[in-house]
Amino acid sequence: MATTSPLSNPHISVPDKPNPAALVNPVQEELKLVEELLRSVAQVNYAFLADILEAIISAGGKRLRPTVLLLSARFYKYDIPHLVPVGAAIELLHTASLVHDDTIDDSLLRRGKPTLNSILSNGATVLTGDYLFAHAASLSTRSENIRAVRLFADSLVTIMDGELAQIASGRNPERARENYYARIYAKTASLFEAACRIGAVVGLAPEQGVERLGRYGRQMGMAFQVIDDILDFQSNTADLGKPVGNDLRHGTVTLPAMYFMDEARSDDERQLVRSVIEGKVDNDEQVNHAVKLIKESNALELAYRQARLFANEAKEALADFPNNENRQALEAIADFAVERDR
Amino acid sequence: MATTSPLSNPHISVPDKPNPAALVNPVQEELKLVEELLRSVAQVNYAFLADILEAIISAGGKRLRPTVLLLSARFYKYDIPHLVPVGAAIELLHTASLVHDDTIDDSLLRRGKPTLNSILSNGATVLTGDYLFAHAASLSTRSENIRAVRLFADSLVTIMDGELAQIASGRNPERARENYYARIYAKTASLFEAACRIGAVVGLAPEQGVERLGRYGRQMGMAFQVIDDILDFQSNTADLGKPVGNDLRHGTVTLPAMYFMDEARSDDERQLVRSVIEGKVDNDEQVNHAVKLIKESNALELAYRQARLFANEAKEALADFPNNENRQALEAIADFAVERDR
Repeated sequence: MATTSPLSNPHISVPDKPNPAALVNPVQEELKLVEELLRSVAQVNYAFLADILEAIISAGGKRLRPTVLLLSARFYKYDIPHLVPVGAAIELLHTASLVHDDTIDDSLLRRGKPTLNSILSNGATVLTGDYLFAHAASLSTRSENIRAVRLFADSLVTIMDGELAQIASGRNPERARENYYARIYAKTASLFEAACRIGAVVGLAPEQGVERLGRYGRQMGMAFQVIDDILDFQSNTADLGKPVGNDLRHGTVTLPAMYFMDEARSDDERQLVRSVIEGKVDNDEQVNHAVKLIKESNALELAYRQARLFANEAKEALADFPNNENRQALEAIADFAVERDR
Repeated sequence: MATTSPLSNPHISVPDKPNPAALVNPVQEELKLVEELLRSVAQVNYAFLADILEAIISAGGKRLRPTVLLLSARFYKYDIPHLVPVGAAIELLHTASLVHDDTIDDSLLRRGKPTLNSILSNGATVLTGDYLFAHAASLSTRSENIRAVRLFADSLVTIMDGELAQIASGRNPERARENYYARIYAKTASLFEAACRIGAVVGLAPEQGVERLGRYGRQMGMAFQVIDDILDFQSNTADLGKPVGNDLRHGTVTLPAMYFMDEARSDDERQLVRSVIEGKVDNDEQVNHAVKLIKESNALELAYRQARLFANEAKEALADFPNNENRQALEAIADFAVERDR
């Protein structure tokens, strides 16, 4: 079987690639205000840090979390002064956790650029992340809504619990596969879920609306992370900012590796992937071979199908909302989560 | 002049050493509940972390921050279910910032015990601190009071800004002395101020009460940190868990060093201390000599007098409160802040 990208696989019917401009349209103006607020957090009196914060915050890119937060609120009472700060807060929380993650993983590259961690001392990196967490916490209170703040705080607890679980499960393929979905929920989907719930709560949505938008965010976030886990096998360093097969190298069991081990053509191939995960094999040639085996199998395609299922569930969660530009933007984001190539 | 401890200096009139048992008496039962809640945060499913968290949380000792929070609330509406979680939250916030500080300073000892940082990888230390921050944030929302949560978040911003300022001012004695009081406010007094304000706010105190208790907390915290800076010159490793003169070694200019440079008997002595601060002299013998010069000067006594002034201002801030066991306990804590020997 030739190397195949799920994104170009003719056997899978996928929607047209969404137009990124359409994604943010309904909340474009509010996102500019979020952006201004994010920049203001970077404007500190200390030149060495101002440059670094500016770079970290600019690197953020798509602002998906504030976007889904604003879109969720927009079905209800759309109170800009309470929403814009929480939009900025959720992006800062995400950014802070990436900064600390790079310390935790000891990564040297992220999004194709050197991590803070590779430029600054560990101490300065920790402090920078803490600075961003502190501002996220402070901005979240500008919602004037204690439930919204609690959703923030509790999603941070979920993220941290997930990171501890990941450390605790170590390089154990069985334990890792048992909790794969729990892990990607904690790592990614929980914050998308929180973003949507927070938007709904600040918009004073009825409980059913909070639940449905939360479900949208959760399933969209699951799709998003499964695709991240596929891209880890596909992208080159320039695209994703990490070496291909980075997860496997670190012993992180993701859905493609799980499917591969279920469906491998031979015990030898299965054993090789297992040994890489367990850290028993770490020479580059063998690791690269394991990555190649997974890429050339149908594992990425199977994982892609799972991501598509999650995205469809996300869209189904919106079924009872009016079919307006808001809902269409959220649907487009769910499609984007699976169709993106970086 | 012989080595003198301000605590035993016959020329300074100090109140009787407060009885620690008297300090916490009025809120003793509630502190037990705070303690239980703190322990529950340590009870995680991952054995490696549970032991570490238990050790970190046990090491905390005096629980001064929850104590002043509870005492501040006790002048007003004393609503235990809303207060106990914020008491635990403020202690966790403090603990989390110590865990990260040890990474930032690369310290190997704290309170006489190895820091987390010297046992675990940097990554695991960062994660442990983040876990504690996350739980602090979550517990703070159980106040059901958005203003209380904002006080938490904003004090975290102040603490982080202060740490950045400290890094930015580097080993520059002039800049460091200009902002000494701002630094110790950010580092220590701001959290004591927040603790008292939060207690008052959750107790639904009138604005004047919030301000007065905030002032008490701030001035008491200033006293507390000046004494910490004195103890850094006096204690031995077993008492304080750090080598004597640790601040000076790290180029951190504190009040005793400032007084010494103002009043040094000779330019040579002044220049030696300056060179240690600037990092131009780092051989142990010369650093120890600089520490000894400061200890043998009147600098510690002058610094102690300043701490006493702060503690007196803290007590004065309570003048309009009824002279009950609550107020007496807060007064005793202000005295303890300056009379403690570790």
